Amino acid sequence: MNLSHASGGGAIVRCRTLVEPALREAVSVLHPWGAKMAAFALGWSDVDGRPDRGDGGKSVRPAIAVLSAEAVGGPAEAAVPGAVAVELVHAFSLAHDDIIDNDELRRHREALWKAYGVGPALLAGDALLALAVSRLAERPEAMKYLSAALIELVQGQTADMAFENRPWTGPAQVTVDEYTEMAAGKTGGLLGAAAAAGVALGGAPELADRMWAMGRDLGVAFQIVDDMLGIWGDPVITGKPVHNDLRRDKKTFPVLAALAAGGPAARDLAAILASGANDDDSVRRAARLTAEAGGRAEAQAQAERHLSSALGVMDECLPDATELRALCASLVNRAH
Amino acid sequence: MNLSHASGGGAIVRCRTLVEPALREAVSVLHPWGAKMAAFALGWSDVDGRPDRGDGGKSVRPAIAVLSAEAVGGPAEAAVPGAVAVELVHAFSLAHDDIIDNDELRRHREALWKAYGVGPALLAGDALLALAVSRLAERPEAMKYLSAALIELVQGQTADMAFENRPWTGPAQVTVDEYTEMAAGKTGGLLGAAAAAGVALGGAPELADRMWAMGRDLGVAFQIVDDMLGIWGDPVITGKPVHNDLRRDKKTFPVLAALAAGGPAARDLAAILASGANDDDSVRRAARLTAEAGGRAEAQAQAERHLSSALGVMDECLPDATELRALCASLVNRAH
Repeated sequence: MNLSHASGGGAIVRCRTLVEPALREAVSVLHPWGAKMAAFALGWSDVDGRPDRGDGGKSVRPAIAVLSAEAVGGPAEAAVPGAVAVELVHAFSLAHDDIIDNDELRRHREALWKAYGVGPALLAGDALLALAVSRLAERPEAMKYLSAALIELVQGQTADMAFENRPWTGPAQVTVDEYTEMAAGKTGGLLGAAAAAGVALGGAPELADRMWAMGRDLGVAFQIVDDMLGIWGDPVITGKPVHNDLRRDKKTFPVLAALAAGGPAARDLAAILASGANDDDSVRRAARLTAEAGGRAEAQAQAERHLSSALGVMDECLPDATELRALCASLVNRAH
Repeated sequence: MNLSHASGGGAIVRCRTLVEPALREAVSVLHPWGAKMAAFALGWSDVDGRPDRGDGGKSVRPAIAVLSAEAVGGPAEAAVPGAVAVELVHAFSLAHDDIIDNDELRRHREALWKAYGVGPALLAGDALLALAVSRLAERPEAMKYLSAALIELVQGQTADMAFENRPWTGPAQVTVDEYTEMAAGKTGGLLGAAAAAGVALGGAPELADRMWAMGRDLGVAFQIVDDMLGIWGDPVITGKPVHNDLRRDKKTFPVLAALAAGGPAARDLAAILASGANDDDSVRRAARLTAEAGGRAEAQAQAERHLSSALGVMDECLPDATELRALCASLVNRAH
């Protein structure tokens, strides 16, 4: 996501400039082969190892860590180990998720496993995670949240994977509540860890639990928007094939909300989904029916509700955190 | 490895009895699907989730942690979080290594990925690692070594994988020194973490650095013996296909030592390896030539040298650690 011109963009660039040298230093200890894969995964180089200042990803999580530390009056530098750790965990999770989901594209490029093979990509992911843990191994006040986020991540990813094998309708259908729990873990845990580690390293560990909860809410909002972009976003901008989620029975919020709403459009949608048809025509029709049944509007409303809940906590804990607030809001109001 | 009747067997059983409830409790928080895979990976149940008190693995690492804590006068219970963490990391590494190495068998059963698929097994491995980290997240004095072991593990595994693409002879050949560094990381790091976390949690963090070094030496000895069992061990006992390593150009110590020795047998061995032949006859001949060139004897000698170095450190740091000493020695003097 290019936030340079959006709200919070200046802060993102400033934080990235602060964090990137430490991130590069962390990765530099790896075996040359691992370092090459890590550099590709982090968007620093192309598949052959040539420098590539491309779309290195959002750098949102490190920025949240740094801005959270500043918001409690700490120096930005204090948050750097936490910022590096959350960015490494994010890169780890993308590397492994793309293997698990068999996704071939990431940020307009080949996925790591597609470029280097499943075994090497798996191992590179493990290396990124090991480096992340090492950043905070002796900072228990922040490690606590990184560790919680790791568990939430795998639990959320497992739930998401298990959802794919469950039916769209009937007593075993996935509920909106189950989705919310999954998204809070899969997407919210690491955002929460970024904020909690940031305030803890910045000198206010007493605020960390609330910032952790804030991040989980923010994650649900973020994931719902991500689901919407997967259905109605421009693949040229998102860098992912359109309707991918619909094709693979991924239980996304808009579709779950549409089905829960009932009515004729929801019934037609359920029929298409139950048929298992995943040709272009069927998935386009499913996307249209999802909106018609109210799934798109409900997704937007729920994303805003969760964002507002996250911002409420932030306003209470960190009333002067203007940049952090703008950054978090921009995650939910985005085009890709 | 069934050590019940071997030296150190009583200690293993005692430690396992102490640690297993905590290990089961750790795993119990997982998503049911993840918990099922974890129970299979840890040897507690069969592929369908039915209880299975089979070969649950060696439990060597948790025993080292517990015995190390006791050796510095701490209560055995103090070491339990460390013991659980190292056992979970061990299970994580086996789950991922079997994917990376495409190994279909583990402990006389299907490998985790073979039983549940690559994606789920990868994720189950991640879950085991996340649980491991959570055990020590707020115990920096032990986390420090677990974290170092994680980095050593992935570095060693990466090096091992990179070795497979290098030639057996010529200027780019893998040297015995490179092998030793790889084995110290891949196998020694976690043994070192077990011992270091054990003494740190047992109340003697000042001994942890030396126990970490002890574990790395022990790991080299252990890995060399493992390599020997892979070539000359009984597959009925090891639970792995014989000559697997030779077939896939894995750079094992006995073969590297044989090639380094020179002489006619070494030259014949090099010729077979260079030909890429991996039929039963060729690998059997390669195994025979490895012994003939002195690779087996050199492997035995080097394993003993590294064990003796590890035991030397132990005798200095923990002169009364009879059980721990016997357990470590038994790792190198084993049939499988």
